[in-house]
Amino acid sequence: MSYERKNIRDMQGYSWGEQPSREQVIKLNTNENPYPAGPSVSKALAALTVDELRRYPQPFADSFRDVAARAHGVSSDNIIATNGGDELLRLAITTFVEPGHTLGMAEPSYSLYPVLAAIQGCHVARVELRDDWSLPDDFAEQLNTAGAQLAFVVNPHAPTGQLLPVERLRSLAAAFNGVLVIDEAYVDFIDPEQAYDAVPLIREFDNVLLLRTMSKGYSLAGLRFAYGIGSASLLAPMLYKTRDSYNTDLLSQRLATAALAAREEAAETWLKVRRERSRLTEQLSALGFAVIPSQSNFLLVTVPSTENPENQAREFYLELKEQGILVRYFDQPRLRDKLRITVGTPEQNDALIQQLRQAIETSAGRN
Amino acid sequence: MSYERKNIRDMQGYSWGEQPSREQVIKLNTNENPYPAGPSVSKALAALTVDELRRYPQPFADSFRDVAARAHGVSSDNIIATNGGDELLRLAITTFVEPGHTLGMAEPSYSLYPVLAAIQGCHVARVELRDDWSLPDDFAEQLNTAGAQLAFVVNPHAPTGQLLPVERLRSLAAAFNGVLVIDEAYVDFIDPEQAYDAVPLIREFDNVLLLRTMSKGYSLAGLRFAYGIGSASLLAPMLYKTRDSYNTDLLSQRLATAALAAREEAAETWLKVRRERSRLTEQLSALGFAVIPSQSNFLLVTVPSTENPENQAREFYLELKEQGILVRYFDQPRLRDKLRITVGTPEQNDALIQQLRQAIETSAGRN
Repeated sequence: MSYERKNIRDMQGYSWGEQPSREQVIKLNTNENPYPAGPSVSKALAALTVDELRRYPQPFADSFRDVAARAHGVSSDNIIATNGGDELLRLAITTFVEPGHTLGMAEPSYSLYPVLAAIQGCHVARVELRDDWSLPDDFAEQLNTAGAQLAFVVNPHAPTGQLLPVERLRSLAAAFNGVLVIDEAYVDFIDPEQAYDAVPLIREFDNVLLLRTMSKGYSLAGLRFAYGIGSASLLAPMLYKTRDSYNTDLLSQRLATAALAAREEAAETWLKVRRERSRLTEQLSALGFAVIPSQSNFLLVTVPSTENPENQAREFYLELKEQGILVRYFDQPRLRDKLRITVGTPEQNDALIQQLRQAIETSAGRN
Repeated sequence: MSYERKNIRDMQGYSWGEQPSREQVIKLNTNENPYPAGPSVSKALAALTVDELRRYPQPFADSFRDVAARAHGVSSDNIIATNGGDELLRLAITTFVEPGHTLGMAEPSYSLYPVLAAIQGCHVARVELRDDWSLPDDFAEQLNTAGAQLAFVVNPHAPTGQLLPVERLRSLAAAFNGVLVIDEAYVDFIDPEQAYDAVPLIREFDNVLLLRTMSKGYSLAGLRFAYGIGSASLLAPMLYKTRDSYNTDLLSQRLATAALAAREEAAETWLKVRRERSRLTEQLSALGFAVIPSQSNFLLVTVPSTENPENQAREFYLELKEQGILVRYFDQPRLRDKLRITVGTPEQNDALIQQLRQAIETSAGRN
């Protein structure tokens, strides 16, 4: 007999990028930072003892919240710490979207959103991105018409890496009737010249929730630590009601706190990733790939034009995998002729370019 | 404006035992193991590097599942790893109980259950324990009549510490129409002479979910790591659909795996706790407290009879707190004349007894 709810039985789970156990794989498929966290985090790790683990952790991760509040110029009431970004996304749905009601998202974007919606038993209003991958001007209005209680916007966008300016987010927050979640998982890789900072929006609007994670910019994907920034009134029900009481553990609290306090160590890796992003963009373009300008640590690239680009992209993905290089292939509309490639170290990117060059030559030879 | 759902707005969050930051407090209020984890766990902690944290952890915590499967003589398909026991309880509700439908529990028991039910927007059928704190014979029938899709049984029971025999659980599983969650958070402290082992039930029944945690028996409350044992068909929707994709982090996976593999190290602490449980039971009885025989690492004790036992219990709680000793006081029916006291080290228990003796003398002097 099966006991699960009907909506759970009917839904598909999330499909995530492969996490191979082989160490020698060049892993450019799940947007990890190619450089490890800095000495401050190593020091915090070395200072931990099992004796401290005997007791429960700080239920609200207050030490982390204090550091995050200072980093962003807000109060600690404006910060919620979560077990990875996924937990914050889930909490937002649990807290703000009634089963049977609707949440909104742009299509395509992070494929976890519809999965979380299915678990809650709510509908998804999908608004197609325009041909240039930008949000339609009437995005908020379309979602209001659909009765959306919450909307997800990824900025920089995944999987394209494109950045919306704060001014556009401001008008969205003003126009949208529900809670606007701005998923800033990749925010650390934005060029400083863009002077992007959406944090002031949380003072202007009580419906804006920013998501930040330690997984990408801070090289701590293994830690499962993220945080939200929002008005105190917006965060309160998640902090005091819907969150698991001890949702983050002591080890990850300590390491995340150390990492955020030593932001300048992580910033060195961001600089290196941006340099490689430019170089990889140039080299892929030279090979004939169409590359969307990215403010993230990945590139969405269209395979050089052939008779069957969708087949080509999948073939490239498989050939790279056979050579021990993992990139991401999405079997969904508008993405089947593309690959999403995480920016790696110079050596990893060189290996990728070399394999892609070979794959293109082989493919040309077959035709 | 407030954006949260009506059921979230109307509900009360969970109230948990105090987690003081002062190190010198004698903490006998949240049932932590008074002894730290053993050398195998220290070794695993020392072996960790921040470089490993760069990548995502094993999404299913497979190394842990293998060790747990061997420990319990089941397959790894029968194990789900979670971010503390709270996550497993929440997943069980999310997965098996429809909003608007019902889950069942004994009253009193773990006060988190109704909170999780309120978040899901489902009803709670509460079945009163009998005067001797045992489950009524028709527990399953009452819950079936109420249409409960899931029921929580804590064994050993909290907050009394009483143990139901496996035979009673077997008849419950057979009689109950929904999913029977047996919360075994305190199972490690059961006297070995009881030969208690509920794991065989998961082969006989596809509706039995056992909850185990590393927080108590393995001295790792700070780690947030627990696991469920159940039939593969029961676990599958939680493993592949409703669980956050990376719900446990790399650090806690490694340490939990090391701790479970070195079970004999933890078992030394269980022996010490059982010895102190006996001694504390005797000493509290000698002071005039009525002590319920406990198979857990805590005692539920009724204050020596006075004109106003409820007032007395609360006063004792406050006086102990003033002296730097935390115990748990529950302001709820049947528990207001009682204290729940975690078994500590011999020194901590001596300090508790001494303070309670003084409190009784002071109280007698006032009357």
